[in-house]
Amino acid sequence: MTGDERGRKREPEQASDALETSGGDADIVEWPVSLSGVTETIVATRGPNELWNLAALGLFAPDSDGESNGDGSGDNPVTARTWGSTRTRGNFRRQGEGYVLFVDDPVLFADAALSIVEREGPVPDAANAWARVSVESLETGVDEGTEWERWALRPVETAIESTTVPTIDRGFGAVVEATVAASRLGVAGYDDAKLRQRLEYYASVVDRAGDPREREALERVREHSSW
Amino acid sequence: MTGDERGRKREPEQASDALETSGGDADIVEWPVSLSGVTETIVATRGPNELWNLAALGLFAPDSDGESNGDGSGDNPVTARTWGSTRTRGNFRRQGEGYVLFVDDPVLFADAALSIVEREGPVPDAANAWARVSVESLETGVDEGTEWERWALRPVETAIESTTVPTIDRGFGAVVEATVAASRLGVAGYDDAKLRQRLEYYASVVDRAGDPREREALERVREHSSW
Repeated sequence: MTGDERGRKREPEQASDALETSGGDADIVEWPVSLSGVTETIVATRGPNELWNLAALGLFAPDSDGESNGDGSGDNPVTARTWGSTRTRGNFRRQGEGYVLFVDDPVLFADAALSIVEREGPVPDAANAWARVSVESLETGVDEGTEWERWALRPVETAIESTTVPTIDRGFGAVVEATVAASRLGVAGYDDAKLRQRLEYYASVVDRAGDPREREALERVREHSSW
Repeated sequence: MTGDERGRKREPEQASDALETSGGDADIVEWPVSLSGVTETIVATRGPNELWNLAALGLFAPDSDGESNGDGSGDNPVTARTWGSTRTRGNFRRQGEGYVLFVDDPVLFADAALSIVEREGPVPDAANAWARVSVESLETGVDEGTEWERWALRPVETAIESTTVPTIDRGFGAVVEATVAASRLGVAGYDDAKLRQRLEYYASVVDRAGDPREREALERVREHSSW
């Protein structure tokens, strides 16, 4: 590895510009954001090629998955499901850990959700906060022919890189919904005609209310899918 | 006014707990958040009854409304439209100013957008940031029988009350979209059947991905509309 490459490879443990960090050892620490309901994130997991794979992952706050995680220990972790034989599932199984990234960049979200994104380091500059998590398989099942696996995610190290005043941005929301709809095209159990109708509507919202970054993200959704 | 009432009435000019404030005189100051595309906000305007009326208002960043505001002066303000003979339009005309509130509480957003909300002060605790703005009427027109008026909004005093790590929350987005759809039920130029189809879908997203506050907000949308 050259010095340049080392410079580009982000080492979260040594990040000195974070607003706030915690953890660093094996203790369980708090999540860097308040979680309720389902929060969409990007997860970075290290693959057999040593590169970090980025993919979308929905975090279920405790008690929001409609299932009890109670094992009598009082432990009530955040959970997430992987669907199918994805890189994330394989890397979770092999490594037992990953990085959960909290992002608000629509292009990165669309790319990670709908295409293969591999990087040399786990935490892109676009992450506003991140959590290194240990993962534990809780159960597996099959839904409409797709194997899923439900995981407990427990943060062991976290950082907040930047905070902002939250605003209501319909264009951003439309990109997220378009990404979800596009990921379901051709998937058993979903109606393609309804998905395409929704996609057209989200495109019209981005057209009217979006900013340039959201327009670019919507183009990525089109490129990465059969839309 | 009793001491208790005085205590509840927020006086932005004297807010000492704000993270950051600017302005306070008649000079134009920067917006407290970065604006691009359309940003949904709540606007507080003082009515003839001396109460502050809260309503939803979409802010168009400069050059995102598809219309030039250029008058040769280099001034390129944020704009917003009022639709119909609303309290906001009347109060803008009478007072020439108002408070733009940046909020992320889904219940307050749904209430302000779909019902009459009046308060003794302009800035609720739920506001993460606010801007007192001077408003200037730019043009009026008629669309599908509804008179609209387009306004230039220029901040003269602002404050940031709190910041957070932004997260992707489909439940919150679904409440916002449901609010927009519900506000269009029965309005000329919109197809009620399509709006109701979308409302059912947003309700299903809140059901799966929402948190308790978002579920309550969706109930408010139902209560306030003909959904």
